[in-house]
Amino acid sequence: MEGSADTLKPPYYAVIFTSLRTDVDSSGYEKMADRMVELGSMQPGFLGVESARGADGIGITVSYWASLEAIRSWREHFEHRIAQELGREKWYQWYRLHICRVETMIGFERGE
Amino acid sequence: MEGSADTLKPPYYAVIFTSLRTDVDSSGYEKMADRMVELGSMQPGFLGVESARGADGIGITVSYWASLEAIRSWREHFEHRIAQELGREKWYQWYRLHICRVETMIGFERGE
Repeated sequence: MEGSADTLKPPYYAVIFTSLRTDVDSSGYEKMADRMVELGSMQPGFLGVESARGADGIGITVSYWASLEAIRSWREHFEHRIAQELGREKWYQWYRLHICRVETMIGFERGE
Repeated sequence: MEGSADTLKPPYYAVIFTSLRTDVDSSGYEKMADRMVELGSMQPGFLGVESARGADGIGITVSYWASLEAIRSWREHFEHRIAQELGREKWYQWYRLHICRVETMIGFERGE
C-alpha cells in the first residue's frame, strides 16, 4: 500500500471504489487516475491506497483514512469533483463506492 | 459483484483481502481460489464478492457479509482453514485482511 497504513490500529476508515471502465479516452483516464492518487495522498487524514484492475476491466481501489471527515473533505475537493464529473460523463460504465469503518486488520508477511 | 449486494442497505460488512502472490504453484492457487469463491458464496450471510488482480501481481478481493458472525464462521470453515494454511505456506508473499462495517454505499450506472 502507498502510505503507512501497515502500522495503524483500527478504528480507521476505508473507501472501496469498484468500477468498470468504458472504452472511452483511456489516456485521459490514466492521467487523471495518477493525478488523483497523487493529490489524494496529500490530503489531511490520508493513510494509504491500494489498487488493482484485472483483465476483465473491473478495478478495485481501496483508500484508507483517519476519519469520515477526511473522506468527506477529499470527496468535495475541487479537482476531485471535476474527476468525478468526467468519470460519470465518459470513463465509467458503472461504479460502487463503499465507505466503511475498519474494525480489524490482520497482516501476514513471508519470512526471508 | 457476484451475489445481490447491489440492492443492500448499510450497515453490512466488508472483508478487504489485499495480497501479493508468490510465483509458486499457480494452477493449484487458481483452483483453490475458484473453490473458495464457490464455497464462500454458499455460506450463511454471504452478500457478494468482487475481485481484481493487476499486472503488478497485487490482488484485491472484497467480500460482503450480513454480520461479523457470518465472517467469523466463514473464516473458521474447515476447507477455508486449509486454504488459509496453504496460502501462508506457499501462495502469498504477503496479505492484509481488513474487516469493516459498511456505513454508506453509493452506486452509479451509465444509462443506455
